Amino acid sequence: MAHIKLLNEELPGIVGLLNYRPETARPLLDLAETLLRGSSSLTSGEREIIAASVSYRNDCHFCHTSHAAAAAAHLGCGLGLIDEIKAGLPNTSVSSKLRALLDIAHQVQKGGKHVTEEHISAAREQGATDQEIHDTVLIAAAFCMFNRYVDGLGTWAPGPNEAYAEMGERMAHVGYGKF
Amino acid sequence: MAHIKLLNEELPGIVGLLNYRPETARPLLDLAETLLRGSSSLTSGEREIIAASVSYRNDCHFCHTSHAAAAAAHLGCGLGLIDEIKAGLPNTSVSSKLRALLDIAHQVQKGGKHVTEEHISAAREQGATDQEIHDTVLIAAAFCMFNRYVDGLGTWAPGPNEAYAEMGERMAHVGYGKF
Repeated sequence: MAHIKLLNEELPGIVGLLNYRPETARPLLDLAETLLRGSSSLTSGEREIIAASVSYRNDCHFCHTSHAAAAAAHLGCGLGLIDEIKAGLPNTSVSSKLRALLDIAHQVQKGGKHVTEEHISAAREQGATDQEIHDTVLIAAAFCMFNRYVDGLGTWAPGPNEAYAEMGERMAHVGYGKF
Repeated sequence: MAHIKLLNEELPGIVGLLNYRPETARPLLDLAETLLRGSSSLTSGEREIIAASVSYRNDCHFCHTSHAAAAAAHLGCGLGLIDEIKAGLPNTSVSSKLRALLDIAHQVQKGGKHVTEEHISAAREQGATDQEIHDTVLIAAAFCMFNRYVDGLGTWAPGPNEAYAEMGERMAHVGYGKF
């Protein structure tokens, strides 16, 4: 049970919190929609992988699993991607640019000052643009917020990967505006 | 100099980033406005203290100093509050409820799962409501994002506390909608 009395205790993870406080839900959903489905030269699948990977490193089961399921829905691959992201994508074909951007995201997860000029140069060498670097840092930072929001209020989340299949499809193809 | 080429390199901290990417600036500013100046039973001064204290613990000079200056502007006290927040407010008269909420915020800064039922009960015993606990967790989580955004992209910030006086007044009395 969550640390506070939600209006509907059946709603998992962030969904119950968005329902509890509509005033803050609006900008949070607008931010997720813009970051993950708005205009960008990174695909939504790539951006959801960054979100899921940072969430895994923040030990946030709900955000990691749901955003990995959303990435799988974008990429048209199976839910095996959820555990692949945990393992660092050893068996998934992703660009060297995305791997360099993930390195930046993982530094942001530890703290902003962990990002060095070397991380930025390595991403540029793989073709990352300034805007892609900007968006990667902001996605990683935003999930350091979402993860803390979800776990700091002690929300519940379904356990098994399979429970996130439908949610991932909706996040990918309907988006974040409709909660 | 920031890690990416901003449009105006003279703008400090998050201001240069908001100017660089207006699409993401809008929901970020809406979030700050709602969290820090929107409807709440916590005063804006109390909420800015939470924001500044979390930012200090994330070692984000720009956010800590500017939000502490905003708190000082709300409370009508001097910029001495900036260093008081660093020190844990030993000489500032704040309610025991705010001190208990700050304890929760400091756990959120470490990670969502650091918040326990004991921290929540302690805040309730000092009169904190569910919505105040919710807002505290979300403010703390949001500043874990803002701090990483500002430092993860290597933005510059003025050094001395005095340089933040006018910015703090504007944040407190004009708000976050006008950047």
